[in-house]
Amino acid sequence: MPNLRVALAQTNPRLGDFEANSAQIVADTVTAFAQGADLVVFGEMALSGYPIEDLAVRPEFLSRALTCMTELAVTLAQAGCGDIPVIVGFPSVSMREHGSSLSENPSAIAHNSAAVLYGGAVVGVYNKHHLPNYGVFDEYRNFLPGVGHLLVRIREVDVAILICEDIWRDGGACDELERIQPGLVVVLNGSPFEQDKDDVRLPLVARRAHAVGAPFAYLNLVGGQDDLVFDGDSFIVDEHGVVLARAASFEPDIVVCDLLLATHENRTNLTRDCVAVTCGDGNSQHPPLTVSVDQTPSDERARVWSALVVGLRDYVEKNGFPSVILGLSGGIDSAVCAALAVDALGPSRVVGVSMPSKWSSDHSQSDAHDAAQRLGIVLLHEPIAHVVEPVEQQLDLTGIAAENLQARMRGVILMGLSNMHGHLVLTTGNKTEIAVGYSTIYGDSVGGFAPIRDVPKTMVWDLARWRNDEARRRGETPPIPDNSISKPPSAELRPDQKDQDSLPEYGELDALLDAYITRRMGRDEVVALGFKPDIVDRMIALVDRAEWKRRQGAIGPKISGMAFGRDRRLPVTFYRS
Amino acid sequence: MPNLRVALAQTNPRLGDFEANSAQIVADTVTAFAQGADLVVFGEMALSGYPIEDLAVRPEFLSRALTCMTELAVTLAQAGCGDIPVIVGFPSVSMREHGSSLSENPSAIAHNSAAVLYGGAVVGVYNKHHLPNYGVFDEYRNFLPGVGHLLVRIREVDVAILICEDIWRDGGACDELERIQPGLVVVLNGSPFEQDKDDVRLPLVARRAHAVGAPFAYLNLVGGQDDLVFDGDSFIVDEHGVVLARAASFEPDIVVCDLLLATHENRTNLTRDCVAVTCGDGNSQHPPLTVSVDQTPSDERARVWSALVVGLRDYVEKNGFPSVILGLSGGIDSAVCAALAVDALGPSRVVGVSMPSKWSSDHSQSDAHDAAQRLGIVLLHEPIAHVVEPVEQQLDLTGIAAENLQARMRGVILMGLSNMHGHLVLTTGNKTEIAVGYSTIYGDSVGGFAPIRDVPKTMVWDLARWRNDEARRRGETPPIPDNSISKPPSAELRPDQKDQDSLPEYGELDALLDAYITRRMGRDEVVALGFKPDIVDRMIALVDRAEWKRRQGAIGPKISGMAFGRDRRLPVTFYRS
Repeated sequence: MPNLRVALAQTNPRLGDFEANSAQIVADTVTAFAQGADLVVFGEMALSGYPIEDLAVRPEFLSRALTCMTELAVTLAQAGCGDIPVIVGFPSVSMREHGSSLSENPSAIAHNSAAVLYGGAVVGVYNKHHLPNYGVFDEYRNFLPGVGHLLVRIREVDVAILICEDIWRDGGACDELERIQPGLVVVLNGSPFEQDKDDVRLPLVARRAHAVGAPFAYLNLVGGQDDLVFDGDSFIVDEHGVVLARAASFEPDIVVCDLLLATHENRTNLTRDCVAVTCGDGNSQHPPLTVSVDQTPSDERARVWSALVVGLRDYVEKNGFPSVILGLSGGIDSAVCAALAVDALGPSRVVGVSMPSKWSSDHSQSDAHDAAQRLGIVLLHEPIAHVVEPVEQQLDLTGIAAENLQARMRGVILMGLSNMHGHLVLTTGNKTEIAVGYSTIYGDSVGGFAPIRDVPKTMVWDLARWRNDEARRRGETPPIPDNSISKPPSAELRPDQKDQDSLPEYGELDALLDAYITRRMGRDEVVALGFKPDIVDRMIALVDRAEWKRRQGAIGPKISGMAFGRDRRLPVTFYRS
Repeated sequence: MPNLRVALAQTNPRLGDFEANSAQIVADTVTAFAQGADLVVFGEMALSGYPIEDLAVRPEFLSRALTCMTELAVTLAQAGCGDIPVIVGFPSVSMREHGSSLSENPSAIAHNSAAVLYGGAVVGVYNKHHLPNYGVFDEYRNFLPGVGHLLVRIREVDVAILICEDIWRDGGACDELERIQPGLVVVLNGSPFEQDKDDVRLPLVARRAHAVGAPFAYLNLVGGQDDLVFDGDSFIVDEHGVVLARAASFEPDIVVCDLLLATHENRTNLTRDCVAVTCGDGNSQHPPLTVSVDQTPSDERARVWSALVVGLRDYVEKNGFPSVILGLSGGIDSAVCAALAVDALGPSRVVGVSMPSKWSSDHSQSDAHDAAQRLGIVLLHEPIAHVVEPVEQQLDLTGIAAENLQARMRGVILMGLSNMHGHLVLTTGNKTEIAVGYSTIYGDSVGGFAPIRDVPKTMVWDLARWRNDEARRRGETPPIPDNSISKPPSAELRPDQKDQDSLPEYGELDALLDAYITRRMGRDEVVALGFKPDIVDRMIALVDRAEWKRRQGAIGPKISGMAFGRDRRLPVTFYRS
């Protein structure tokens, strides 16, 4: 007989918008309660949004979070959900002394916490033990580590709480639960999407569930926040590794699942480091639920595409932009960005601009028109020759300076249209060109958001082909012109220019960059993979020298194991001897 | 009788340039040895430069550092300095197991260390205990904490080693020395300049010296590295707070000082956590030295000016730029930036560009010419009217869009000249306008380096007046036109525009921003200081909304307690309810 009905509520919080996030938590709890849930769990920092970065050291922000959490408990009770515990992530002011031994940051005053709301009050708080301080995470900068455990007792079932990094670290908070023996462990996460990370999460959590001897409910946030995309995909896995429930990827969802859990009567006593709050008898009993778990493995390209769409959509929506604008060159990068934008926002909120120069080929203009037509978006035509010419003549620009001038005048045009009409400018550079600095700063790099900045060139082509196939499968028009996919890439800043005039073939280049950047190999290790030493040296030098440009680049969604930006922090001034 | 002659060698390392840094260490050691030094101490990471950021997790970089350190020991011995210990900071691969308990970063493999070189070998290594992970520092991200102490025994004197943060934390590595009772403590630092920090360092170190009961030799790096400026100002203070020696500020220096130190015969035994290396008898005895300590308090504006000059000079020199170029508007910001550039590089390496528009006043052009003449720099004249017009007409730009267009065309001109001639473009925005977003992105914000990005507007005026007074004092031409200092500030992007049309008076604005940004006050706290609530709300909203622009801004020297950039990490997408 199932003895606990658990609801995983996967929300998309807006950072700092406590009112809207609270309202969503209430709405989801009411829905789950109506389905007979005995317990509702929300994600890491679901109340505030995540990551809050240095807002964590602002007393004003923390005080607001606490007030809102207290009010939320009352509101939930008023909404008739006071009889079931609701677990919600939030930043909490530490009650402990701020001794220097607690942190490497004397300014840190908060924990990354989960509140247990019950009967109209906050009845318990669990503080995250392990604070990731690598990759995109700065949690040891912003938070104090927690100690001890909190059990939520619902009808004799002890539910333990962990937060994200707690399950990724051996010998820590999660291992301690092996002694405590809860009946269920809920894990609140703000775990950003990364390619292939999905293959890691489930086996890890299954292993933890096996070790603790209890099911684990893994609850992730969903939605975009600056450069991060939370992919949802929450699940419950039992101690034998069986997936009992699974939520949607990349969209909000509520999953309710009946569980048969061990009760605490047979368990060890509580200790000073492990306290319990009793949360009544739960919901009235309902007939057992049947949950079907979709076991279809999703295509990795589909997941990446979704991450890019969600990252773009949430940046636009959460920052209140009415529309986006981007240059359509007829090339693959801008065609893919336009397709992403249309998938994210619909065609009426996307504006393309064709900005041919005297070096633009006929096909670049026809391909841009083709893309716009396939997508159903407006295409403006703003040729640049007669705005480029006066500057070129006045300054007597030649060579690279003249090439860059064309890109910069396009930037001026896009920003002018943005300033007039309120569009967010999308910059269409891919990860490969951002890596080697193959772009014009203040030219094609202008924009507030860079949808494919973490997508290597070869993957841009893959995604384009996949998206077109997907359209054909659905009986729709493929959104990306085949010619944009098949033609040799060119910046078209001088006659007959091709990317491969100055760069290795993209397949080779992306493999080299993956080794140097994502896998952090040294020069000799990269050479040992079989790349020509002179090419390795030249490409590494390009990457290192382009750091100053990357520092001034727009943010965009991280989809790889190592994105540029806060994931990879390197000096600009750096001599490679 | 003095029993130890100590040399503090304050160097300006180039990050990653192990050869050049080693050569400097050898040269300085030879100089100090010739002056009879028994011990030579260099700064934190003097071998590699500092901060190395994520280079600390690259095995290739660490292995190179170790090789160079080993070679350095041999070279020093070959140079005849093998008989005295030399202490040098460097990143060292940890010899300990990389257990998760050591760090919040599973990728960390290195310590922030000091090597003791003696007799042609590395005879000991001390690892920094406390890893700052706040402000501009990410050391808990990049390093593993050290444990235990290392004593360098020179003629019966026990010299203990600490590194930077070790002295800033109570209850840690420095306090442990109270039990160990060394005869001297040397502290290797990479401590960036901040206004008024000087007032904190000396009292802190004096207090530590008193507690430990031994003199402290505080050794700081010097020079600029990206956004940080190390100000040198190394000193030795005894246990009574008397300053025995002091090195130059903002330039390399070697200070040699005779000390009378307690010997280790009367001390407690060594323990497992405290080992000693015996480094012979030191140098042959020389006649006692007389050291005079300059007690003149330096003007804070002089120190800030020096920090800005060094930050700019080292960015230019370490990145190999032949020259800099900047727009000279006739306003105070560009005039001050030009004066800084001339102080840093000399007039022949600075190019000014006057880019009047149809809204430019006569005085703006004459003031720009006056500034160029005072500084002895080339001034190019590139009017923008006929390059602005074609774009304005083609896109039908009006209002803010038309204003921004003018700033962007100036950016296009500066970047064109930079691309043609190799100049580094300086962007002249001050901290106040960067705070409230009062600039045109891809317009006046273009450039690789922003000399005054951390200087509030009111301080720009102060510095200008101080620099002119300084020139008069030296009998030189004041470099900044009086008119640029006295006239009301204006962007001159439309007729009769003044900054104060849309912003509060700068004295009030800077005070408000100091409260909100540097002192991290909440909205209500700022209001409680006496500012009008509607102005506070409007200014805070401007600051929060400008985060996306700041993310794309050029780096520049930090001089305040809270600079924009890695010192203050906040989300772009952030809803202020």
